[in-house]
This record gives sequence, structure tokens and C-alpha cells, in this order.
Amino acid sequence: MTTEELWKKYEEHMFRISAYNLVLSMVYFDNDTIAPTKGDEYRNERMAYMDGEQFSLQTDPEFIALMEELSKREDLDDTRRRIISWQLKDLDAIRNIPKELFVEYSQLSMESQQAWEKAKNANDYKLFEPYLLKIIEMSKRMLTYRHSDLKGYDILLSDFEPGMTIEKYDEFFSLIKRELVPLIRQISLKEKIDTSFTRRHYPKDLQKKLMYRILEYMHFDLEAGLLSETEHPFTNSISKYDNRITTHYYENNLMSSIYSVVHEAGHATYNYQVSDELAKTYVFDNMSSGMHESQSRLMENYLARRDSFWDNLFRDMKELFPEQLEGISQEDFVRAANATECSLIRTEADELTYPLHILIRYEIEKGIFDGSVDVNDLENVWNDKYEEYLGIRPQKASEGILQDVHWSGGSFGYFPTYALGSGYAAQFIKAMSRDLDIDECLSNDEFIKIKDWLREHIHKYGGLYSPSEQIRIATGEDFNPQYYIDYLKDKYTKLYDL
Amino acid sequence: MTTEELWKKYEEHMFRISAYNLVLSMVYFDNDTIAPTKGDEYRNERMAYMDGEQFSLQTDPEFIALMEELSKREDLDDTRRRIISWQLKDLDAIRNIPKELFVEYSQLSMESQQAWEKAKNANDYKLFEPYLLKIIEMSKRMLTYRHSDLKGYDILLSDFEPGMTIEKYDEFFSLIKRELVPLIRQISLKEKIDTSFTRRHYPKDLQKKLMYRILEYMHFDLEAGLLSETEHPFTNSISKYDNRITTHYYENNLMSSIYSVVHEAGHATYNYQVSDELAKTYVFDNMSSGMHESQSRLMENYLARRDSFWDNLFRDMKELFPEQLEGISQEDFVRAANATECSLIRTEADELTYPLHILIRYEIEKGIFDGSVDVNDLENVWNDKYEEYLGIRPQKASEGILQDVHWSGGSFGYFPTYALGSGYAAQFIKAMSRDLDIDECLSNDEFIKIKDWLREHIHKYGGLYSPSEQIRIATGEDFNPQYYIDYLKDKYTKLYDL
Repeated sequence: MTTEELWKKYEEHMFRISAYNLVLSMVYFDNDTIAPTKGDEYRNERMAYMDGEQFSLQTDPEFIALMEELSKREDLDDTRRRIISWQLKDLDAIRNIPKELFVEYSQLSMESQQAWEKAKNANDYKLFEPYLLKIIEMSKRMLTYRHSDLKGYDILLSDFEPGMTIEKYDEFFSLIKRELVPLIRQISLKEKIDTSFTRRHYPKDLQKKLMYRILEYMHFDLEAGLLSETEHPFTNSISKYDNRITTHYYENNLMSSIYSVVHEAGHATYNYQVSDELAKTYVFDNMSSGMHESQSRLMENYLARRDSFWDNLFRDMKELFPEQLEGISQEDFVRAANATECSLIRTEADELTYPLHILIRYEIEKGIFDGSVDVNDLENVWNDKYEEYLGIRPQKASEGILQDVHWSGGSFGYFPTYALGSGYAAQFIKAMSRDLDIDECLSNDEFIKIKDWLREHIHKYGGLYSPSEQIRIATGEDFNPQYYIDYLKDKYTKLYDL
Repeated sequence: MTTEELWKKYEEHMFRISAYNLVLSMVYFDNDTIAPTKGDEYRNERMAYMDGEQFSLQTDPEFIALMEELSKREDLDDTRRRIISWQLKDLDAIRNIPKELFVEYSQLSMESQQAWEKAKNANDYKLFEPYLLKIIEMSKRMLTYRHSDLKGYDILLSDFEPGMTIEKYDEFFSLIKRELVPLIRQISLKEKIDTSFTRRHYPKDLQKKLMYRILEYMHFDLEAGLLSETEHPFTNSISKYDNRITTHYYENNLMSSIYSVVHEAGHATYNYQVSDELAKTYVFDNMSSGMHESQSRLMENYLARRDSFWDNLFRDMKELFPEQLEGISQEDFVRAANATECSLIRTEADELTYPLHILIRYEIEKGIFDGSVDVNDLENVWNDKYEEYLGIRPQKASEGILQDVHWSGGSFGYFPTYALGSGYAAQFIKAMSRDLDIDECLSNDEFIKIKDWLREHIHKYGGLYSPSEQIRIATGEDFNPQYYIDYLKDKYTKLYDL
């Protein structure tokens, strides 16, 4: 068969996989947004079965042989070669796992997520603990099937962020600890920025209106996406033209929905701007987690916390909340949006303390996999670390170990990419500011220029390049976390008059 | 193999089918409620593929042979025999159709529904006409693959309502024409009931609150179901514990959402109350359309338009809409809820004129399939019939031929079951009133007693029995449309002082 014919066969099989991807994504989205709880058991069993069907398609030996053959063909063009090579790399995570075990794990992780939600609502870690222990045990068992050059937690880290290892993360986080912990201490001695007005009553319906106004400003295409509600905000890109974001509205918190919506819109924009040529290929949605997070953080922190971002929006916000924001200027609002204070909830944390929340999770995960953390004592371990790094101790499990959904689904190795993404974003913003006057774009209601820059330098490639290649393409340099540190130090030194 | 072993094999295959049913139902639900339009093309292609996968499982020759073998076993118990026999009957609709044609039809019907929605919004039948013509042509082509004793439109009628034919429907509708058209004429000469207050401004959010209050009164289990929004209200029972209903809120219409929600809750309750033993079998959701409609109509018309239904709800409604309902008594409200007037929109039509809307659709469908209606002139045919039977002529396609979604999906033969369902319901209510004081139940906030009666006499059986058997089980008699006619004549004679 010619290479072109082989590629056709590959695409036919990929179409089948994409059909299963589509229905499974939508069902998981439904599950996370609206599905009634009493239907869980019936649904879990059948979804696990469908996950198994999908698994069979993905790991079909003939299909893998076809890809391996393609990857040997010299006349395969570079784009196609990369596509195949990423897919083969990712396949390593599942290809040697027995299907039964895969289906068992899939069903366990659904049950475990449902147990997590119940435990969180009941504020009782004990309801979730047996599931977490099973998930940890299963995750370790899954690792025994991997044919990687790496070992243990390194394998998981590299699944979420190709090229990253414990060694490299240790270096990254020690820089963060060294540079940021003293800065946070210094700030804690200064006078606090007034954020009390952000805690007034902001009715959900009006918050929703504000969200659609912000999305409009960001040129978010609502014919190719939507905004929904969940316990834990997330983005699900079902296809280039179907990008779904969710948020959670707290009526006593103005900032939460704003920054979660901008954050998720950042993720959604990445997939929306993948080039048409790549949109139906494997690299539409295989970007590393750190790269994806860089795009959400860029919008959330590096754009939406600037004064100029609000030049076109603050007036609308005041119209929606005339009483709540009485006497509050745009400057007051932006200062509040940048205020820093040690707090318990990661998703509500400010830009400066955020990486410490990640550091805590990274250290615990590392300990789970090297055996240095007692898995039967995780709630205490969690609370102790919060006391150590942030000086505060969770009093409720829902504000402590139960706050995040990730572990319930077995996503170990994912958290560290959140801090890394913020680091990547600092470097991207630096590069962008060489080509664009960012404040002018924001102020002139030309967010589209920023989106265009991101599309041309990053988004259009999807996951065609490794994180380090992509960073070099967009910025002309290797990843350098110093940009991130410098940005935070500069910003907070000024904000708190240090 | 023993019969028990064969049954096990059958159940294993049915589990696989149920997994595809689950994901496809959920994806269609998503499609109808929230999916962004620009994702249509990508989604349609893949959903059609998945429909094909489902088709292959359902029509798998080995599986069909297994069922046929089971149906011959003498030691198969009666319940299982019935389950198999219904499934084999329904299979006739698809088993001889080439898979390619099935997938083509599936994709066409998705595209056609999307075209219908656009045409309706644009108020332009021409945008939808080419799709409708294709759907008609394909529906006729599909009929050529049927191995039925029946012919043409009779086959479709019997698909939706086993036992019904053109001959029987002609008889049913001529009774309706003969008895109701003169009654409607008589009423048109009388003074109108004041319904103007129902057209005041009723904000959507408050309407929503009212809906949840009504659902609470009806003991609708929101942990096993949900209420969502669509252009065209419907019910989707994904499993016994996942019954989804939708409505459409019109801010200038108080009645529309109330009666559509009660209607859909009637459908949902049917599936919710199927016995546990049958809930995971084929007869969980194979009830005839007429039987299903009888349960929605029973709640909508025979319960929720009674004065006693509002004894516990009217106060709450007045609290939600104090200005809109100022000076309106419960009696005024109930009179308005029962007022009759010839109108253009079927779903908004009152109980008395409703069957004429169905008659019109029935006559057009019959004409499409026997060739007596010119399919290239359907809009005029539609408008002429409205003028003939209801004395009013649609001025806009959205109020005329574009008002209903059904034809866009190829559901010919479905409409007549709507009128039949109302007929069945009259007979069920008569039987129920022999066992229960219905007004007392409603007035005493004991809706649950009514639900219990329905469960014990109808719901728990699912679709185990044919409509005529089920009617005999629940009422002790054969179906007799005279109950329906008597009910309408009695009610409207009193209401309008004839």
C-alpha cells in the first residue's frame, strides 16, 4: 500500500474513534452538569462499557501496526509524522493494560467522583477515603503495565507534560519557594487591600449577565460554544466548533465567577483557534496540560487582572450592580482583583499564593508514589502542609483535602502543570508585548488582536509540537521560569509598596 | 443451550444495546437543548455513525436468530415471551434496511431538524421544503423494505400504535368531526371567557419557580429527573431514574409552560413507575405512542385543569405574580385554563379544539402516502385545512406548517396518537374515579395516591401489553371513544352554558 493509502485507512479508523470521543465527551459533560444522581448506577455501568469500546478501538493491534508502519515511511510528511508519533506516545498509557482492568478503572473513577461530590457536600473525608485509597492502588497497578523509560510518578508527570520529571519540577518549585515565600511573608506585614465589597450580595442572574458581557468582549463565539454550571469549573472541547465552559456562581463572591469564566474561556479559545487542517486530527486536543493551562492563565491573570481589561467592562458591571459597587472606582476594583492573601481554596487563590497550593499537592503526590507519605493519613498531611506553607490550617474537609475533584478521577501528575502553565504564560506575554501594545488593545476593545497573536504563535498548531518546541516557536527562547518570578516580584512589590 | 442460558446471552447483548441507547439518548438530548449550532456538521456525521453502530447491534443476525429461538422455547415464561415478541415486532421497522441507507437517513433527519429550526426562526417554509421532500421520499423508500402484512401509511400507523390502521383512525376521527365540530361552532357564538390576564408579563425566572413548585406538588423526583429548556417541549427517559422533561417559557403567556410541564411530567412519570423487574428490559420504553400520550394528557387535561388541582397551588402562584394576578380568583384562573377558542398552534390549543389540529395532520399525512396530496403544495394544503376546520388561516409559516418538529425527523404516523391518547385518558380517568375521589386527592395534597393508582393499573407494566390489552387491564373494558366525547360535551356544555 502507498503511504497515501495507508493514511486513508488511518483516517477512517480515526473517524470511528472520533465518533466515540464525541459521544463520550458529551455524556461526561452531561454527567458533570445536569445528570440526576439516582441515575448514576445505571449510567456508570454503561459508560464504563462504552469506555471499553473506545479502548478497543484505540488499542486495536491492527491499527497500532498501521501507525507503526506509517511512522517508518520516509515519504510521510512532517505534520503527519508528528501526529502519529504523539498518538503512539500517548498510547503507551493504555496499550498494555488488559481491557477488563481498564473498564474496571473507568467505572471506579466515575463512582469515586460521585463519592467525592457527596463527601464534599457532607464535609466528611471518611466518605471519600476508601475510594481514594482504591484509586491510588489502581493507579499504581496501572503503572506496572507501562513500557516507559521512566519510573513511578515520573511516568505520570510526563503523561501530562512531556519532558517534565520529578527532578525538573523539584528545581522549578524550589525556585518558587525560595523567591515567593519571603515575598508573601513581607506582604503579610503590610496593610491589606480592601476587598470587602467583592463579598456583598451579587445575585446569580446578574452575575450571569456579566459573564456573557465579558465573553462578548473576549470575542467568545457562542455559536461554537456555551457556558454552563458545575460544582467545579472546567472546559470541554468537543470539537473546534463546540467548546463548552462551565462556572460556579457564588452570590457572596463577585470575583469567583469572573475569573473562572475568563480562565475557562482561555482554554476554550485554544481549541477554537486550532487550524482547520489540524482540527479533525489527533493533535486537536493533545496539547500538554501545562501548555493548555498557560492559555487559561494568560487570560485570567495576565490580561483580566490588568486595569486596561476593565476599561470597556467596568461601566457595564457598575450598571448591573449599582448598589453593591457604590463608591467603588475601577482602580479599587482592579486593586481588589490583584490583592494577595493566604487562603485555603486553590481555585479562589490569588496569583501570588497560587503556586504554593500547587506545591503542596505536588509534594503529597510525590510522597504517595515514593511511599514517603502515609496514604492512611492524607487529611492530616494535607492540613500540615497548608499550615507550613500558607500559615493557615483547614478546619473543614471541604476547604481542605476535599476541595479538588482531580484525585477522585485518578489524575495524579496533573496539578504541577497548573503552576508550570502560569510560568509559560509569563514568557508568552513577554513575547506578545514585543509585537503588540497589550494595554492599548484591551483599552480599545480590540481583544481580537490578542486572540490573533495567540492563534498565529500558538493556537493554530494544536498539540503538534512539544511544550519546549512550542515555547521556542512562540518566544524564540527556551522556557525560563525567571520571567514568571520577575513578573510576580515586580507586580507585588509595586502593589504593596515594598 | 437451556432456555435460561439463551436468555443470559440475550441479556448480555441487550446490555450492549442499552449502553448505545444511553449515550445516543443523551447526545440527542444535548443536541436538542444546548449544543452550539456551528458544531452541527461535525456532530451530525459522528452521530449518524454511532446510530449505525447501534443499528448493527440491533439487527445482528445472530442476535435475531437468538431471539427467534427463544420465542420458540415452550419453557419461556410469559413475561419474557412478550418482551421478545415486542422486540421482534419493532425490529421489522429496520431489520431489512441496508445499513448505509439507515445511516444516510439518520444523518438526513438530523440535518432536516436543524433546517426546520432555522426555517422556523426565519419564518420561511422554503428553507425547510427541500429537506421535507427528501424526508418524505426517504420515508417512502424505507417502507419498501418492510415485511408487513400492512401497506403504506398503515405500516407507519401501526408502528406508533399497534393495532391501529387508516380504517380505524378514519372511524375515530369521523366521530370527533361529527360530535365536536358542531359543539365548537355553538361555543363560538357564546361570550368569550376572559383570558387576557394570562397574557400579561410573567418573567421567566418566576415561571421557573412556579414549575418547580408544581413538580413538587406532583411528587416529581428531581433526583431521578430534571427540567430543561427547548424550542419544542419533550420528555426523554434515559433510564427509570433519569427522566428528563423540557419546556419553553413565553413571558407573555402564563399557561404555556404550566401545561407543557404537567404534560411532560405525565410522560416522565410513566417511565419512572415501570416496575424494577421490567426497568432494564426492552419494555421499559416501548409503550405505544397513544398509551404514552394518554398519561401526559391525563395529567395535563384531566387533572391539572380541575379546580381541585389548584387548591394547593393557586396561593403560591399568586405570591409569585401578585401584580399580574391582582383581582383574579382561583375560579377565574381555572375558567381561563379551560376556555376554548380556535387557534393556530397545536401545542397551545385547548382540549376541545386540539383533536382538530390532529385531524388536519392526519389527513395531510394520509394524503402524502396515498398520493392524493401534492407534496409540492404542502403549505397551501395546510393553510386550507386550518381554514376549513378551524375557520382561521395561518399568516406565517411558523404558525402554520413549520410549527411542529415531527415531520422534520420523519415521524409520519405519530400525530394521530395524540388524539387517541386523549381518548384513552378519558377512559382511564373514568376507571380511576371508581376507586378514588380524585378531587379529594388533589385538594388534600395527595397527588401520590393518583400516581399510585396509575402505577398499579398501568405504569408498572411498561410496554408489556398491547394498547388494547392494557386498556382492558386498567379499565375492564375495550377502548371506547365515547367516554372522551361525553367528557368533552359535558364539560363544555356546562362551562359555556349551552
